Amino acid sequence: MTDNRLDRKIPSLTLLGLGVMGTALARTWLAAGHDLTVWNRTESKTEPLTATGAKATAAAAEAVAENTLVVLCLLDDESIDETLWDTDLQGKDLVNLTTSTPAQARARADWATARGARFLDGGIMAVPPMIGIPEAGGYVFYSGSAALFETHRSTLSVPAGTKYVGEDAGFAALYDVALLSAMTGMFAGVAHAFALIGAEDIDPKEFAPLLAGWLTTMTFSVHKTADQLQSGDYAKDVVSNLAMQVAGSATLLRTAEEQGVSPELLTPYMTLMERRLAAGHGDEDTTGVVALLRR
Amino acid sequence: MTDNRLDRKIPSLTLLGLGVMGTALARTWLAAGHDLTVWNRTESKTEPLTATGAKATAAAAEAVAENTLVVLCLLDDESIDETLWDTDLQGKDLVNLTTSTPAQARARADWATARGARFLDGGIMAVPPMIGIPEAGGYVFYSGSAALFETHRSTLSVPAGTKYVGEDAGFAALYDVALLSAMTGMFAGVAHAFALIGAEDIDPKEFAPLLAGWLTTMTFSVHKTADQLQSGDYAKDVVSNLAMQVAGSATLLRTAEEQGVSPELLTPYMTLMERRLAAGHGDEDTTGVVALLRR
Ligand SMILES: NC(=O)c1ccc[n+]([C@@H]2O[C@H](COP(=O)([O-])OP(=O)(O)OC[C@H]3O[C@@H](n4cnc5c(N)ncnc54)[C@H](OP(=O)(O)O)[C@@H]3O)[C@@H](O)[C@H]2O)c1
Ligand SMILES: NC(=O)c1ccc[n+]([C@@H]2O[C@H](COP(=O)([O-])OP(=O)(O)OC[C@H]3O[C@@H](n4cnc5c(N)ncnc54)[C@H](OP(=O)(O)O)[C@@H]3O)[C@@H](O)[C@H]2O)c1
Repeated sequence: MTDNRLDRKIPSLTLLGLGVMGTALARTWLAAGHDLTVWNRTESKTEPLTATGAKATAAAAEAVAENTLVVLCLLDDESIDETLWDTDLQGKDLVNLTTSTPAQARARADWATARGARFLDGGIMAVPPMIGIPEAGGYVFYSGSAALFETHRSTLSVPAGTKYVGEDAGFAALYDVALLSAMTGMFAGVAHAFALIGAEDIDPKEFAPLLAGWLTTMTFSVHKTADQLQSGDYAKDVVSNLAMQVAGSATLLRTAEEQGVSPELLTPYMTLMERRLAAGHGDEDTTGVVALLRR
Repeated sequence: MTDNRLDRKIPSLTLLGLGVMGTALARTWLAAGHDLTVWNRTESKTEPLTATGAKATAAAAEAVAENTLVVLCLLDDESIDETLWDTDLQGKDLVNLTTSTPAQARARADWATARGARFLDGGIMAVPPMIGIPEAGGYVFYSGSAALFETHRSTLSVPAGTKYVGEDAGFAALYDVALLSAMTGMFAGVAHAFALIGAEDIDPKEFAPLLAGWLTTMTFSVHKTADQLQSGDYAKDVVSNLAMQVAGSATLLRTAEEQGVSPELLTPYMTLMERRLAAGHGDEDTTGVVALLRR
């Protein structure tokens, strides 16, 4: 054990961007013994890190020159251009943890490749307090250069778990946004549920475990939907078919009315279910709604 | 053990309504050795059950007369009136598993009490294939007469787990609808997520566990929202505040646009977040959306 540790040098790296997320990432690499060079537009944010062993440079290009592995955690895709437009990236391994859309990530991969760098895009499925805490369940989607990922896998695993999802540089961003979009829907449903009980003498903290438990149980349906989408048979293993779901919506709407709650967060999905039912798909599952969303 | 079993007579009961759900319930009581009397408007549906030991009656009133415990699993609240309008309910323990709104359940409790019956309302958090399969995680919310619930607790536990949520007869229906409403939101988000990956060469079945896992992890936020609602401090323990969430929405919308997916299932929640932000609550969590839903 000790011998191995001495044999394997801990890789050094550069990190550009010390916002809340970048700072959280930096701390984990420093704590794990990596030589870390940092740069941030507003230089004062480097101070807490240089105090614990990081090297800071005045210019982004200087930080990039220090190491082969260069991680970006800037605000958005535009800020990458502003930071690196005139920097030599030849031979660099660029890992972009800046939130992007799939198309931005693909364009950024082309941009990096044209400058002689290998490129990996990442989508961080965590908030800063989850970084460096494996039990918190956060992780990072990666896509793009598989070779880059394999080279730096252990270094990239320091802040959070890693999930490599393919050579297409846009996939990490796509998976990231898809999961956040689904979560937005869940949050909308949760807000509606809390609004429904809001007028009653019910402790939200006693209600919460029931709600969280039910949503967790119902995630089983995600697998069924995937199976139906893959097979193209939307009636496969259906239990509550579309006709029953639409009928059941009436009770949800009537209850919202009774409790004085606007149905605006539920009606768009119900409208799509009704359209699909009207098109003659009552015996299927609700999976056909997916098709109605695509144009 | 054997002595106890011989001492304690297994209670008998009556069940009105043998649709898909009623039939599933009936099977579990028969399998557990209960004397079961059934009635169904369309009499032929009693046959599979009488073949395995149930007693069937031609009139609902006859079935009611057989036992103190009478369970209803009819289509809707109106069908209860049609079935029991002239039936003597004096001294009966009426358990209503027919889906109702909270107001319907409360009115039904008054109706039963006026007829000399004890009343318990139930909200079934399961589909028929989950009935009698404890591992499936289904259960029934009960509210109303605590005395009735205690008297028949073991009989009521046969088809599925039980959760008693209070003397207010409307609470079981309210909890039921609140959980189903939240689930509807989650399903809407899931549909959007599958639509996003739909144009790409991604296997939905490989994507599904990531999506299900993320939603499960994110149910932790339900507890935080409850805590904020209870304390009235919507900025308590905030990690991604409303201002950050609204800024992040832009990436979700832009990705939807890129992938050719209508944002209609996400925008209503985003609109409420924006309204709350515009009202000066940017430092809070998204919890204030709940207030905007109430009128
Ligand atoms: N925080 C989260 O929960 C979270 C979760 C997942 C992903 N992310 C992603 O991680 C990235 C960083 O987020 P954060 O939370 O650290 O944000 P933040 O605290 O707002 O920090 C933004 C960082 O970007 C820099 N920056 C902004 N505009 C720039 C420009 N034009 N040129 C150079 N640098 C610029 C800022 O530098 P200054 O200090 O000079 O302003 C700062 O270092 C974002 O893409 C975000 O979407 C964040
Ligand atoms: N299935 C589920 O997944 C599920 C889940 C949770 C809760 N529930 C609730 O359980 C209840 C029964 O559902 P189900 O799935 O069994 O429905 P179902 O298969 O459609 O059966 C409906 C039952 O109601 C009876 N009925 C309808 N109108 C009636 C009337 N006017 N008078 C007397 N009887 C009448 C039907 O009798 P006939 O046979 O004569 O038509 C049948 O027994 C509903 O309230 C439903 O919301 C169902």
